[in-house]
Amino acid sequence: MWCCHFSHSPFSVLSSSSSVRVLLSSPPSSSSRTSFSITSSSSCSATAMATHGDGRRKFLDFPFVSTSHKNLMLDLVSAVENRFNSQLIPCTLPPDVQYYQNQTGSAQASLQIRSGQSNSPVDFVLGSWVHSELPTGGSLDITSLSVYLNLTNDSPNFVIELIRSSPTMMVLILDLPPRKDLVLWPNDLKTFYEDTQLDKHRQAIEKIPEVKPYNSSSLYIRAASSPTAIMVTIGTPADGGEERMEEIIRDHLDPISKQVLGIWFDHCACAKREVGEAERPDLKKRDGVSRSKTLEIDLGSSFPRLFGPEVANRVLEAMREYFIV
Amino acid sequence: MWCCHFSHSPFSVLSSSSSVRVLLSSPPSSSSRTSFSITSSSSCSATAMATHGDGRRKFLDFPFVSTSHKNLMLDLVSAVENRFNSQLIPCTLPPDVQYYQNQTGSAQASLQIRSGQSNSPVDFVLGSWVHSELPTGGSLDITSLSVYLNLTNDSPNFVIELIRSSPTMMVLILDLPPRKDLVLWPNDLKTFYEDTQLDKHRQAIEKIPEVKPYNSSSLYIRAASSPTAIMVTIGTPADGGEERMEEIIRDHLDPISKQVLGIWFDHCACAKREVGEAERPDLKKRDGVSRSKTLEIDLGSSFPRLFGPEVANRVLEAMREYFIV
Repeated sequence: MWCCHFSHSPFSVLSSSSSVRVLLSSPPSSSSRTSFSITSSSSCSATAMATHGDGRRKFLDFPFVSTSHKNLMLDLVSAVENRFNSQLIPCTLPPDVQYYQNQTGSAQASLQIRSGQSNSPVDFVLGSWVHSELPTGGSLDITSLSVYLNLTNDSPNFVIELIRSSPTMMVLILDLPPRKDLVLWPNDLKTFYEDTQLDKHRQAIEKIPEVKPYNSSSLYIRAASSPTAIMVTIGTPADGGEERMEEIIRDHLDPISKQVLGIWFDHCACAKREVGEAERPDLKKRDGVSRSKTLEIDLGSSFPRLFGPEVANRVLEAMREYFIV
Repeated sequence: MWCCHFSHSPFSVLSSSSSVRVLLSSPPSSSSRTSFSITSSSSCSATAMATHGDGRRKFLDFPFVSTSHKNLMLDLVSAVENRFNSQLIPCTLPPDVQYYQNQTGSAQASLQIRSGQSNSPVDFVLGSWVHSELPTGGSLDITSLSVYLNLTNDSPNFVIELIRSSPTMMVLILDLPPRKDLVLWPNDLKTFYEDTQLDKHRQAIEKIPEVKPYNSSSLYIRAASSPTAIMVTIGTPADGGEERMEEIIRDHLDPISKQVLGIWFDHCACAKREVGEAERPDLKKRDGVSRSKTLEIDLGSSFPRLFGPEVANRVLEAMREYFIV
């Protein structure tokens, strides 16, 4: 089984969580599916804008995944951009962080991060894809999108990650990871998870015959996930199961992930939340520990193995800047 | 399926968590399997001691469950008693709380609570069994044992609960529920859950073919559980599966639950933990909210339906005293 196979591989940490992601800023020259909002920032240099456009285009290509997988990612990216519109500044990551590969070219990745303006509840949006040829043939492909809120809003973040080790095997992580201890704050559990009926989406996914629960090998990632987190493996027959996987993505994952994102928009990111001065230090501390652990567990140990220490350090250093609260 | 059937029944809350429990204090007159340590307390009245003996005997009878199920519970109770020996005072609950039933006698239950002495890290040990005839025939039987630590030790608590809706269908909950937010305290995650390799026991249980993951219908219970919590349904064939269920309990649940309890003894309850004055208010607050929610969710809504409002109030009021931090 895929998840078992990878639970001891260099990819296990990378592939088990909400990690490598992208985001986008200026519109692509064309898109057959989505209409991207145009944003700009006078603080960005012309160089940054130019490299940003290249990096963004590479990201939005999603060149290694299937049609339904790409469409799902593009629609989610578009939905986030449309919702926050001018609140997001363009990605200013260096070109060699927006796109990078290992020495042999067997692993390559795209990374985009867009920070929120000061009037936004969004701290930053991060998306990516990673493509790595496997020693056994085939490839590992990860696409992800996550949105981190800032300290003006104590709602959960949003994350989706699709991890494919073959055209017929996938791990899906779709969650609104809480930013407060839900045991200590049962009203937050009620507001964000019970009243929104998030669990019915998890239940719907788990009814698909090809779906099984997925347990991340990282206990920290399990501890950081919400009680309605969708963490599943989806496996269709290795012989001829590609079409069924496309169908599952198109007919199930696509609508459900959009509904979960919609709940997150309406009840979390765009909800009116009062974060008092007294609560802010606790929120800041937890965000800080959580982000630091995410980088450490999730990327620190697997990135060097995938991309070599030099590339890994460059990318991680660039990301760290955003992860500091 | 059992868990689905009950997810909308009056029993669902009761049957989905770490709730109804017992504990014992003076030794039973005889036990074919376990040697119980004798404890006494000069603060207990003669009456309390007498009723305690009756209540304890009723509890240790486990009169409605199978041999292997009863043996498992008796061994765990004995292990807790042996480990804490003279640190526990006898149960002083009123007789009509130590054993109670509904008006028709179709539901009955045994409850035992033993507080820890002032020199103990144990706040109280709570155990119980509940037996209720089902409208469809057959019965629902719950047995549980849990140990709550006090504020001198910030380690996780211990809980085991076996919920049977038939001789061939069971839900097992076995966990060390954390008492601190593991996202904020990653060192605790490492100490209690990673270094102890608790997850290998969860993995071992999940390898049994008849085992499936169980999702409590209570999101609070999911949020309060640890990342290595064993929450599973076990279903053997309705026709002739009783022996196989006995085998699973005897050969798998029995040794694994004892190993988990052993880890809890050595690395949690009896570990040297320094809880500074500065940390204590947070621990107290979280314990308080958690216990209050446990009573509210877990018992408050299902007990009245099982036992009628008068009995339920009496039992819950008696329990509340122990659950206040």
